[in-house]
Amino acid sequence: MNDTARRQARQGAQRDLHIWPRYEAAALGFRNYWYPVNWSRRIGARPVAMRLLGDPVMFRRENGRVHAFYDQCPHRGIPLSVGRQEFPGTWSCRYHGWTYDCETGVLRAALTDGPDSPICGKVRVRTYPVEERGGLVWVWMGDGPPTVPVEADIPEDFLAADAMIVGRITVRHSNWRLAAENGYDEGHVTFLHRYGALWTTFDRMPGWIRTRGGGDEQGDWVRRVNNEVGLAGDYAGLGRWPRQHFWHFKRSPARVAIRLPGALQVRMAAYTYYAWYEAIDAESYRYFQFMVKRGNALRRRGFQLAYWLHRRWLNVQFTNQDGWMIRLMPMTAPERLYRPDASIIAWRRLCEHARGEGPAEADAAAGTEREASEQRR
Amino acid sequence: MNDTARRQARQGAQRDLHIWPRYEAAALGFRNYWYPVNWSRRIGARPVAMRLLGDPVMFRRENGRVHAFYDQCPHRGIPLSVGRQEFPGTWSCRYHGWTYDCETGVLRAALTDGPDSPICGKVRVRTYPVEERGGLVWVWMGDGPPTVPVEADIPEDFLAADAMIVGRITVRHSNWRLAAENGYDEGHVTFLHRYGALWTTFDRMPGWIRTRGGGDEQGDWVRRVNNEVGLAGDYAGLGRWPRQHFWHFKRSPARVAIRLPGALQVRMAAYTYYAWYEAIDAESYRYFQFMVKRGNALRRRGFQLAYWLHRRWLNVQFTNQDGWMIRLMPMTAPERLYRPDASIIAWRRLCEHARGEGPAEADAAAGTEREASEQRR
Amino acid sequence: MNDTARRQARQGAQRDLHIWPRYEAAALGFRNYWYPVNWSRRIGARPVAMRLLGDPVMFRRENGRVHAFYDQCPHRGIPLSVGRQEFPGTWSCRYHGWTYDCETGVLRAALTDGPDSPICGKVRVRTYPVEERGGLVWVWMGDGPPTVPVEADIPEDFLAADAMIVGRITVRHSNWRLAAENGYDEGHVTFLHRYGALWTTFDRMPGWIRTRGGGDEQGDWVRRVNNEVGLAGDYAGLGRWPRQHFWHFKRSPARVAIRLPGALQVRMAAYTYYAWYEAIDAESYRYFQFMVKRGNALRRRGFQLAYWLHRRWLNVQFTNQDGWMIRLMPMTAPERLYRPDASIIAWRRLCEHARGEGPAEADAAAGTEREASEQRR
Repeated sequence: MNDTARRQARQGAQRDLHIWPRYEAAALGFRNYWYPVNWSRRIGARPVAMRLLGDPVMFRRENGRVHAFYDQCPHRGIPLSVGRQEFPGTWSCRYHGWTYDCETGVLRAALTDGPDSPICGKVRVRTYPVEERGGLVWVWMGDGPPTVPVEADIPEDFLAADAMIVGRITVRHSNWRLAAENGYDEGHVTFLHRYGALWTTFDRMPGWIRTRGGGDEQGDWVRRVNNEVGLAGDYAGLGRWPRQHFWHFKRSPARVAIRLPGALQVRMAAYTYYAWYEAIDAESYRYFQFMVKRGNALRRRGFQLAYWLHRRWLNVQFTNQDGWMIRLMPMTAPERLYRPDASIIAWRRLCEHARGEGPAEADAAAGTEREASEQRR
Repeated sequence: MNDTARRQARQGAQRDLHIWPRYEAAALGFRNYWYPVNWSRRIGARPVAMRLLGDPVMFRRENGRVHAFYDQCPHRGIPLSVGRQEFPGTWSCRYHGWTYDCETGVLRAALTDGPDSPICGKVRVRTYPVEERGGLVWVWMGDGPPTVPVEADIPEDFLAADAMIVGRITVRHSNWRLAAENGYDEGHVTFLHRYGALWTTFDRMPGWIRTRGGGDEQGDWVRRVNNEVGLAGDYAGLGRWPRQHFWHFKRSPARVAIRLPGALQVRMAAYTYYAWYEAIDAESYRYFQFMVKRGNALRRRGFQLAYWLHRRWLNVQFTNQDGWMIRLMPMTAPERLYRPDASIIAWRRLCEHARGEGPAEADAAAGTEREASEQRR
Repeated sequence: MNDTARRQARQGAQRDLHIWPRYEAAALGFRNYWYPVNWSRRIGARPVAMRLLGDPVMFRRENGRVHAFYDQCPHRGIPLSVGRQEFPGTWSCRYHGWTYDCETGVLRAALTDGPDSPICGKVRVRTYPVEERGGLVWVWMGDGPPTVPVEADIPEDFLAADAMIVGRITVRHSNWRLAAENGYDEGHVTFLHRYGALWTTFDRMPGWIRTRGGGDEQGDWVRRVNNEVGLAGDYAGLGRWPRQHFWHFKRSPARVAIRLPGALQVRMAAYTYYAWYEAIDAESYRYFQFMVKRGNALRRRGFQLAYWLHRRWLNVQFTNQDGWMIRLMPMTAPERLYRPDASIIAWRRLCEHARGEGPAEADAAAGTEREASEQRR
């Protein structure tokens, strides 16, 4: 055994996820779900290039509708997002003027090969179904056409007419699964956020919480249910913990739930918090943080004001503590779970029931070719 | 199939070059050719270290002649380019004073082992044949001695007594083959450079050009011959393209040709443009851009003035559009060629006839040892 | 053979160390030795995180004693060095409050699982034995408990009551073995440091030195013994070398020795110089440079003054020349040794007798589990 092998052995086995095989394989997220993309107001006529679940995707609005292309011209691989528009309803690659239909992705003209170009109609760039709900753009990241309507993957709060949705979208460096696990993880809340989080300064935060098996399935969600809340206790040979001070007077109950493909819900007295953890690639994720307030117009406006006055900043500072941990957590470290990790296990189990991949799953390029050739018949 | 494999499949097969096997293998360029290195005036007594075709090479001038070493001391691997001169006609490694003959590369002294060092004459550092023509330094990147004179690999314009040669040398990030293909590619000219290139502002640029099979072989060159030039046409379901405006009055015919190991020629009315695409390593290339004007001294000086007044800047801005595309073009994307890519295919076919490797091709270190031991006999 | 393979062949074989198999395998240094860590005064109550021999290690002082943990919480892999203290004699992970005993590394409480957490005592984080001598912290980088007392791995100068120890600790980029070889290498001194080193400006530096077989074993050390010192000589066909000038009047004899796990000693008239080359990972090393002066308090103070006035700066400038070469020396280059490299060979041979690994060598994580479960019985 040489030193390198010895060192690897010394570091111990890696995080072992093999009993959750679908979760283990989901470094790039789960396909066949609708995912949030961006605020509707941020997608206009100029192309927006993003990576989602490992795919480069270009979004662009025309005549009020948002279209999405796989962001690579089948000809020579140039990103279509640097392209330009020559004719309404089409989009042209910047390099050779291959011109695609925005709806179908079919090549309608190869301008630099003249009007009689024999390649017209024989090539298709992949398009993604796009919808808009709740002021957000949503995209179907599937290997075929949508198998569910967009509403099936959007929490009802986002669809309600009386909802005020505010929030922020950031990019963070780590695999999305570590972030989603941290979101639903019950154990860290009473330690990590006890110290240094402004938001919890006046909270009478318990020392530990015991839940019923990590969570109950309620519809699409797995929701944590507290069985026991321990305010403080005597630890053998160490002493009493935690210290509760007179200024710890607030109780801030929060009901936490998580659902596929990686969306968190935290119901609080004043509003509901939602987060999406969306794989960009295997090493980074897009982090959507929303607060949703339902009520009459006055309440909604009041909440919007409170958000910009303090809720936003408290939330940023609070979730930056999570970001600190997620960033430091190596995918390659072994893990040794303890009792409160029942919540993480419940989430991993849920993932094993993620939507299957339809018959259209295979290779997109091949699919593109196939569909295009079917179209020719 | 796990998600990673699925994703790779989804992205489709890579650019498939297997029907041009020599071209496919030429990520580091073709050996056994003379390559341009730098302007002669830029190589003096101080060593110049470069990477060419993956080899680290050191150039240095002594007594008017340029010498080139493989830039790595056989002793401990230190670059010879940080060395110093102890005796005329030799070059010493900076670390232990191993002293090599500039002509032959043979170790003439290991200074720190005393005059009786038994290793003298037993080690050789690889040297490269160097010539100077047209104000440029040229090096034979072969695995043995040159099999052709340097003139065989230099366009005659560079050898003429009445030639003014001006230009620039830059480094760009991509594989040299994508750059060479772009240089000879006919399809992109009428789309990529139609928009935003100052040089073509007043050109009556056609919409498409149809060539005879991608090019005719003329001596060392493959030269494009236009069969048809389409100024504008009606594209079914889309409309007329391109739009020709009243200020598009200039016709700028250009005759484009390419030759091994990767040199482009564009004959224009006022001058001839030459480019070399030279592999530094698999991910970057050196880009030589020359304009050659032949004529009497007055015409040559006039051209030189025009070059510095406007031709240089227009050319930089024009070729930066190409650089933009080349930089965005992934080596790993699939490709789907169309009719105008006949030019690219003609070039790839030419590459299959690149100079073979002589019997001296093998491992340079082994060769070094072999030659040195032959010398000892 | 494709071009990539050809290029690799052309570059020649890599440095071939297979006749010194333990040395070849020691990219991360030799385990089962005491290594210097830092000045004692630099380790206080705030954790110091370092990488040593590839291991992340956290050091921290409590009640005057320094403790060291493997810097990764067994739970989710968070570095313990971002943790905090909840109870004396323990250290808690910042994420979930897993609380470890500083002496034994045993988990004494998982605070967020309440006082009755069943995981207590069942997990252990690896601890490293630590000692302090000569104003420095030393750590046992072994796979089990120390097999020798710390004094066995510390030169006696550091243990003497009449010693003044001054110096600096830096991090350099390369494998530690190239640095250690350079330290004991005899051939480079008379060439590399002849030019540009201020320290040797007035030295009558010889052109070459012939040692007796690279060095004699003297206790733990291999020490070079000069057989012949060549001031200057006539090199056939080249001339006389080196040039000795009238201002070269000083003789600065130095007796150089090296020992495992990579410590250099240079005895000079005024003081003794020591260096440690300590692997951080395979690509970087920590470089300890000490000057030790023994004598009465007055002499010691005088030396300290001289160190800060000029000795330190001359030494930095001198050893930066070595750092320049080490940085440029590729691990992947072939090597061709010559007569003075007998010193390098003597050192490599010594390494083949590095301390063996005890039965406790195996996987630390497994060991941790094993010890913890033994403790439970």
